[in-house]
Amino acid sequence: MQNYRFAPETLGAQELAELDGAWRRCVGNLLRMTALAQSGHPGGSLSTLHALLLAFGNFAVDPRDPLAEPRDRILVSHGHISPGVYAVLAEQGFFPIEDALLSFRRAGTPFSGHVETAVPGVAWNTGNLGQGISAGVGQALACKLKGHDSRTLVLMGDGEQQKGQIAEARRFAVKFGLNRLIVFVDWNRLQISGRIEEVMPQDLPAEWTAAGFNVEIVEQGNDFAELYRVLRAAYRGEVLDPSRPTVVLARTTMGYGVPFMENQHGYHGNPPSLAQAREMLAHLGLPDDLAELQARRQPLGIGGAGPRHAPPRPPVELELGTPRDYAPETRTDCRSAYGNAMEDLARLNNQGPVPKVLAFCCDLETSVKLEKFHAASPGAYFESGIQEHHTAAMTSAVSREGFVPFFSTFGVFGVDETHNQNRLADINEATPKLVLTHCGLDVGEDGPTHQCIDFIPLVSSLFGFELYYPGDPNQCDRIIRTAAARQKPVMVCMGRSKVPVLLDAQAAPAFGGDYRFVPGRADVLRAGRDVTVLTFGPLLPVADAACRQLATEGIEARLLNMASLVPLDRDAVLAAARETKGLITVEDHNVRTGLGSLVAGVLADAGLGVPFVRLGVTDYGSSGPAAQLYAEQGLTAAGIVAAAKKLAGR
Amino acid sequence: MQNYRFAPETLGAQELAELDGAWRRCVGNLLRMTALAQSGHPGGSLSTLHALLLAFGNFAVDPRDPLAEPRDRILVSHGHISPGVYAVLAEQGFFPIEDALLSFRRAGTPFSGHVETAVPGVAWNTGNLGQGISAGVGQALACKLKGHDSRTLVLMGDGEQQKGQIAEARRFAVKFGLNRLIVFVDWNRLQISGRIEEVMPQDLPAEWTAAGFNVEIVEQGNDFAELYRVLRAAYRGEVLDPSRPTVVLARTTMGYGVPFMENQHGYHGNPPSLAQAREMLAHLGLPDDLAELQARRQPLGIGGAGPRHAPPRPPVELELGTPRDYAPETRTDCRSAYGNAMEDLARLNNQGPVPKVLAFCCDLETSVKLEKFHAASPGAYFESGIQEHHTAAMTSAVSREGFVPFFSTFGVFGVDETHNQNRLADINEATPKLVLTHCGLDVGEDGPTHQCIDFIPLVSSLFGFELYYPGDPNQCDRIIRTAAARQKPVMVCMGRSKVPVLLDAQAAPAFGGDYRFVPGRADVLRAGRDVTVLTFGPLLPVADAACRQLATEGIEARLLNMASLVPLDRDAVLAAARETKGLITVEDHNVRTGLGSLVAGVLADAGLGVPFVRLGVTDYGSSGPAAQLYAEQGLTAAGIVAAAKKLAGR
Repeated sequence: MQNYRFAPETLGAQELAELDGAWRRCVGNLLRMTALAQSGHPGGSLSTLHALLLAFGNFAVDPRDPLAEPRDRILVSHGHISPGVYAVLAEQGFFPIEDALLSFRRAGTPFSGHVETAVPGVAWNTGNLGQGISAGVGQALACKLKGHDSRTLVLMGDGEQQKGQIAEARRFAVKFGLNRLIVFVDWNRLQISGRIEEVMPQDLPAEWTAAGFNVEIVEQGNDFAELYRVLRAAYRGEVLDPSRPTVVLARTTMGYGVPFMENQHGYHGNPPSLAQAREMLAHLGLPDDLAELQARRQPLGIGGAGPRHAPPRPPVELELGTPRDYAPETRTDCRSAYGNAMEDLARLNNQGPVPKVLAFCCDLETSVKLEKFHAASPGAYFESGIQEHHTAAMTSAVSREGFVPFFSTFGVFGVDETHNQNRLADINEATPKLVLTHCGLDVGEDGPTHQCIDFIPLVSSLFGFELYYPGDPNQCDRIIRTAAARQKPVMVCMGRSKVPVLLDAQAAPAFGGDYRFVPGRADVLRAGRDVTVLTFGPLLPVADAACRQLATEGIEARLLNMASLVPLDRDAVLAAARETKGLITVEDHNVRTGLGSLVAGVLADAGLGVPFVRLGVTDYGSSGPAAQLYAEQGLTAAGIVAAAKKLAGR
Repeated sequence: MQNYRFAPETLGAQELAELDGAWRRCVGNLLRMTALAQSGHPGGSLSTLHALLLAFGNFAVDPRDPLAEPRDRILVSHGHISPGVYAVLAEQGFFPIEDALLSFRRAGTPFSGHVETAVPGVAWNTGNLGQGISAGVGQALACKLKGHDSRTLVLMGDGEQQKGQIAEARRFAVKFGLNRLIVFVDWNRLQISGRIEEVMPQDLPAEWTAAGFNVEIVEQGNDFAELYRVLRAAYRGEVLDPSRPTVVLARTTMGYGVPFMENQHGYHGNPPSLAQAREMLAHLGLPDDLAELQARRQPLGIGGAGPRHAPPRPPVELELGTPRDYAPETRTDCRSAYGNAMEDLARLNNQGPVPKVLAFCCDLETSVKLEKFHAASPGAYFESGIQEHHTAAMTSAVSREGFVPFFSTFGVFGVDETHNQNRLADINEATPKLVLTHCGLDVGEDGPTHQCIDFIPLVSSLFGFELYYPGDPNQCDRIIRTAAARQKPVMVCMGRSKVPVLLDAQAAPAFGGDYRFVPGRADVLRAGRDVTVLTFGPLLPVADAACRQLATEGIEARLLNMASLVPLDRDAVLAAARETKGLITVEDHNVRTGLGSLVAGVLADAGLGVPFVRLGVTDYGSSGPAAQLYAEQGLTAAGIVAAAKKLAGR
């Protein structure tokens, strides 16, 4: 089917006939897919099918070069309608339909149950409802920043509208005037458990109107002519207020065109039988090739239908500048060092018409020290309100658009609150930079709800992420520049308090001058052969004091700064285990799941049994200054000294 | 100040004078608190102060018996206005004001920066915005179920309205007709970063109207007479539609009554200086006792102002019934065993006017197998739509109201998406039962977005939670009954697939009959002295097959079922390490952070070095049947056999 680019004002008989033919083939193919896999979601695929065909048949997308710029983005948020998406993409020539028929929901192939970017034409991996619109908002923002005229279309389900994150995404889109964003809602009035009116009633037009969108209602969303008219108007900005984004609420029929599926919520997520599919193929005048396809599909086993990774994208070339040096007498916090480094990155990289380094924030600009970046590069700074779910998901999408976006908030909001958004970012092979302040107990006197003491296990659970924790402002500066250039998703955590500049044995800044931060490499702050203390962040000065105390008692402690928590420096851990009499981990983190757990893993994997003590947070903290909270949890120099003496046999 | 219970139709001169006096004292006390702590949030405390005084001065709450039933609930969602809350609670006689003045934001005391239930009169620990309303909805639902006429008031900030979770909570409240829920929004038009209109514009009346609430707007929210009139009407149900909940949007002034703070967003989270506080005390005609208070406060150190835990509550007495037995030939999934056990619990405990066991679900009733519970106890089943953030937070609140609530959804939605809600539940000492299906790669062919492979580290990070993973339907039945009776927050995870009934050495069901599930105790499924295989859940049959294969080759493997993941059976791990030649962990979970990591921790803590291999998920899975995905990740009997042979030196 050709791409009309919305040229005709209305669809003529020829176009309608062409569309009807394409529609029949797609219905047949999505039924084949789900019947062959005996799994999948035909109901929503069928109700959204007209919109999918009109979108891929009119938006500026090129099957021969799916990532060509500029292009429109078509993002399917209700990713479970993958059979419909694959059918339409194949119809438009993105890949041979056979690939999908033989591989849909087959292990090791890109034709997943929920759409993934490994499939040409798919703009974002979705599947967890409510997040797709945030990714689409990120793509629309990226296009706007690049000065493209392109549109972003986000197709969504109606049950999905219940997710709160959507309200956040809408507000951001309106605030930043993303008027080339078009949202399509497949309003078939059914969700898995039945009629939406009974499962969770919602007034969609009123909600979207209240959010400030143009609201266009399509009465027959499975009628090509009517749907075309409304989508064309939305595409051309012929709406009530062209400065605002637009939602198209299209009344559709679940299972449309397949009589036994129509308005049957059971077909939200259940396939037809092979016999049912066969009958429908006959009804549609399509060949019955199910037996042949099944015979070819069954022996295939795992994989073999193309790569499962998204196509690689060129790295963003950044000027990283010269690291800043903080002199020994400086007393500042790592947050400020982050802010200063970001100011440098803005001045070095954002002077052209299109900025390269972006910053996103959730109503904590001064707390996370982004004021200088904001001032230096106002067009690259985005205040997103108290909307962390949306912001995390949006940032990850922007990172795949040729930008280096930083998202900063407090640890609890960027780790605990948004773990699933970070997980989806990782699955999408996105490369956001999350710089989180107020981690650990070191949050000021805000109390346990604000203390993020589980960032290590949460980030460790994401296969692609790296996790750094600067020891002082000098190291923070260098970590931020490293993170900016890293072609990976990175999280940088830090506390709130001012910390001393760490010094080496010559009383010079340990991380100033030529020091280079290398992911996966620990810093030896003190040499020693008796015991090893492994720590990071705000407890470094405490550990250092303990080591000095131990030295006066004749115990030489090795002090390791594990600023790179993921990847961890396994060699440094193993060397410590072999060369010293015991290991002590000290952390402003849940003692069960933090650095101590990582070190335990290294020891156990190597089959090494050595005296080992973990010091950390053993229960939710109270509300007080960090030093008092550390004292409450035994995280003091005295506590470390006592543990070290025990290990050293004193 | 006496409690008027909204008896006067309007406030007379006497009441107004009394309120004005109370207001002055409270202003003085909240300024004292923040000035003494040099930390805290005076701005919103002052704008909400009139509402707080009218609420605690009219709703049915008793300072002498704060937990008496029936009572109204007053929940402060913007928990950072703790200085205002403590001032009003003390004014009403819940505790002496001195407690708060000397302890506000001091480590080890209950007077946290964000309100906590350890303070008498506080209904819920809040601090992470947007979650309080969900807890309030849970409390309102609980009151309704108990047949109480009581009201639930949720006080909220206006910046907070940006959080998406609020949209979810509103819908639930409307769907279930919680017309005794009153939400008060402190509409002072400022948030941390400045004017809301600039930070993140939002049309509050339109949004709440679209959600189906009665919307009452108070033009002068810092005027006792006007605010009283509207709150009284809301309290008495004198609103447009008395069958619906009501929101009161009150235009207020941040910093009201303290001239240098008024409309200054900088005072959202910054205290006055001692000099400024002194000046204001004089202005209000209050004694200047700051120096004396400071002298008494400074030497106090940590703690000493009452318990930091919420008051204990009586356990819910449940009938657990007789466990069901699944015969060796049975082929079912653990989900169905869960559903059957829940049906039993409903029949045994929900026959009276007030049900004891409740179930909450997010549009996955048939997938999580709650149909039988729903049918057996329709009044105790709550379909909450695709709204997991709200549902998790609400369920945790309900668990503190004399009910045993179960919340079931897929693992990714109940762990990854709602980790922060679960964290807040734990901090609130709530006891929800989260039963999550579709955990691990065993989710059907839905692909990586639906595979929850990090439940172990996430739940391990919550100090109060226990985590179980049944090995077969018999064990699942017993685990569910145990979880129901447990006075703790519990998560039970399970896969989607049908699994065989596990058999003991006599070919009888290993977990049938008299078997009792004991948290913290591993099950020895096979004895052996050569190597030990530790696993759980759907890989048990695979591991068992491996052990049988090994036996044919003369290697006797011990097989441990670690159904209790938290707490873990440390003794069983240590015994295996001492008695066999090596340990292999096998898991349908991220290999970095799962059972292998827990076992490594036990070994390292004991200083034991033994041959140790971890088998698990090493990258995001693809989309296919569980057996294929396990094969992709090397989680096969052959993989286990190979690892065991290596450990056993073959």
